[in-house]
Amino acid sequence: MEKIKLGILGMGTVASGLINIIGFNNSKIEKILNKELTVNKVLVKSIGKKRDVNLPQEVYTTDAYEVINDKDVQILVELMGGINPAYEYIKAALNNKKHVVTANKALIATHGEELEQLAVENKVKLMYEASVAGGIPIINTMNDSLAANEINEIIGIINGTTNYILTQMSDYGLEYDQAVKEAQNLGFAEADPSSDVEGDDAVFKLAILSTIAFGQRIKVNDIPKEGITKISKEDINYAKELGYNIKLLASALRKDNEIELRVHPAFVPASHPLSTVKNEYNAVFLRGNAVGELMLYGKGAGSLPTGSAVLGDIITIAKNANNLVAEKSNENKYIIANRAFKQYYIRFEVVDEPGVLANIANIFGKNNISLASVVQRQKNGNKIAPLVFITHEVERKNIDAALEEIKKYENVTQIASIILVENFK
Amino acid sequence: MEKIKLGILGMGTVASGLINIIGFNNSKIEKILNKELTVNKVLVKSIGKKRDVNLPQEVYTTDAYEVINDKDVQILVELMGGINPAYEYIKAALNNKKHVVTANKALIATHGEELEQLAVENKVKLMYEASVAGGIPIINTMNDSLAANEINEIIGIINGTTNYILTQMSDYGLEYDQAVKEAQNLGFAEADPSSDVEGDDAVFKLAILSTIAFGQRIKVNDIPKEGITKISKEDINYAKELGYNIKLLASALRKDNEIELRVHPAFVPASHPLSTVKNEYNAVFLRGNAVGELMLYGKGAGSLPTGSAVLGDIITIAKNANNLVAEKSNENKYIIANRAFKQYYIRFEVVDEPGVLANIANIFGKNNISLASVVQRQKNGNKIAPLVFITHEVERKNIDAALEEIKKYENVTQIASIILVENFK
Repeated sequence: MEKIKLGILGMGTVASGLINIIGFNNSKIEKILNKELTVNKVLVKSIGKKRDVNLPQEVYTTDAYEVINDKDVQILVELMGGINPAYEYIKAALNNKKHVVTANKALIATHGEELEQLAVENKVKLMYEASVAGGIPIINTMNDSLAANEINEIIGIINGTTNYILTQMSDYGLEYDQAVKEAQNLGFAEADPSSDVEGDDAVFKLAILSTIAFGQRIKVNDIPKEGITKISKEDINYAKELGYNIKLLASALRKDNEIELRVHPAFVPASHPLSTVKNEYNAVFLRGNAVGELMLYGKGAGSLPTGSAVLGDIITIAKNANNLVAEKSNENKYIIANRAFKQYYIRFEVVDEPGVLANIANIFGKNNISLASVVQRQKNGNKIAPLVFITHEVERKNIDAALEEIKKYENVTQIASIILVENFK
Repeated sequence: MEKIKLGILGMGTVASGLINIIGFNNSKIEKILNKELTVNKVLVKSIGKKRDVNLPQEVYTTDAYEVINDKDVQILVELMGGINPAYEYIKAALNNKKHVVTANKALIATHGEELEQLAVENKVKLMYEASVAGGIPIINTMNDSLAANEINEIIGIINGTTNYILTQMSDYGLEYDQAVKEAQNLGFAEADPSSDVEGDDAVFKLAILSTIAFGQRIKVNDIPKEGITKISKEDINYAKELGYNIKLLASALRKDNEIELRVHPAFVPASHPLSTVKNEYNAVFLRGNAVGELMLYGKGAGSLPTGSAVLGDIITIAKNANNLVAEKSNENKYIIANRAFKQYYIRFEVVDEPGVLANIANIFGKNNISLASVVQRQKNGNKIAPLVFITHEVERKNIDAALEEIKKYENVTQIASIILVENFK
């Protein structure tokens, strides 16, 4: 049987998932391909280390170029992560006419344009399904099944760490710090969780998804971000009371010649499918101009789900599919906008005195902000009380202008939270 | 620019969706393909009829063989539905070396094996993404992205008509008959809704999905079915009270060398993503041995969503992808089983006298059925009261044996409902 020979850079959790799947599903894979997948060379940090995969000792090397330059390797699988040295290695492999499969979101979000160009020039394929949302086949779905759709909107829960933390706070009443600790204990969060909780990880993934969706290169710096570190249990409880769940959303909206992009915590209606995406699960909801609403849900990380996505790409290449991907236009069809015409949840701490609500409502009115809900609650014997609003749809700049004015009002002791409400209109 | 020429059989709602999408997304399609999609010939019943698509009059014909034998047509798109004469037409087209795209679930579920064989012999492609779940790309996802997964379970909401009816009964308190009428008014149900409400439509689709998932030809007759006609508002209300929604599920479970298949109403936990699939929406939830849980959600019918799926197949063929589909084995690896080891909801009408609950519980116990929940409710001044049980997991045959015995007990006036509880374990 003909062999397809892989070279792998890195031997962490995704790589061992990949090798294990090739092992236990190998009869199905051979039936599909009529070819055998074999691993020729693997770059590791230390040759002698004990590993939970079953590969002959001689495949391991500590020299990346032994993998990249191996004339038998047809597909290079990059699973080391990080921009350098993966960037140089992938360029070298493409120039060596090797197909490349990678799970590296930071690299693709930053240098995807140049690498795709290089793949085209060398007539090889560069695939990266595993770089976004683990096992969920969102990239291939947009490239293939939805190829004939113009995508108008993407709203994703694409960071499992933050979704785990928010779920634990919401469903089990944990405090933010407790939830982070639990996520770390379970391996869902890193020792330094900042790239997840500050939203950077989701920004990388949204840059990749929106570049494919809109056929225009979206840069990481085009995407405003806000993480979940300021979300309090109080906000989560108000959300539940008002019929919502708080989720970290990565959203991209195309309208006329504008695109709006954003990574931010948001209120999601409890009845919407995205609300049932819990713990480490991910989902991507989108609207195409033909298919309408579509959502893909699944595991956004982990050894086997991510390995499954990497292997899906390898099989696509091995099938020799001539899946041309439309080149991203360099001419910018769309303007990157930031109007954020949405509903907003705003929580104040106010001095519990007559006239406070009226004054705030008056300032909202002057700024053309109309209100959908108000929750005012007396706190026994406490001079400071919470006052919660959900506005109707309005541009974010009107909210900011109103808050500038409200800040000066001495009976408002704190503007505690401003969170966008995603109503999927 | 090179042209890809289509021949279309049938000019109903899906065909006009397809032609409209080709029209309004044509610049994106040309960019992807570097080719222009054009419609050469269309089979219609009546040439002169006014239509909402913009095609020159000369493409229309009432002679199917003018389309099938047109030497310029490269891809035949069959959108007439029904087994005959579509079956003969598709065979003729494949023998003419034309690729075929169809949305015809009855035909593929019944004659898919022979037609796929014929496509292989003629070295052309037969694709049918639109035959299951409208715009949701579940077939291509299983064939491509999940190619390296063994699929262990599929649980789908794949009939929009019944899901619309159940949603209206559950969320708006409609009676079954009212909900059917409303579905008919909105075009979600046919004048004779029996193929949907009796489960036949879902059986066709499940046969197609499970054939792909398990690589073994599953026949329509292998699938036991139960429709929704016996679901009462009372059951729906008990479901909600106990934390569930009632959905018509199409399920396939592989375990060791057995497959269990079933189309049936079931209790679905309110917290599960399938519970948020409302009205005419569809979703397919599955478990792969590498990817884990995955769910695809979207519009299961309609002109544009189904047209989008048809066009996705056309583009895949036009890209000239060499997507080999694993041939389905004729040797039967798996036995079709029907043990139904699940939880069950059972509602009785009983005479409200002491000892009735104890007697029934006793009969359950003798049949090795243990109970998860019991709801007993007194009805003021009424001698007949409802008595509701949810069992722990047990084989269906134990339930049937217990009910055989309970039937003879004079204080049970009616075994009102037995509905499977799907707990996604």
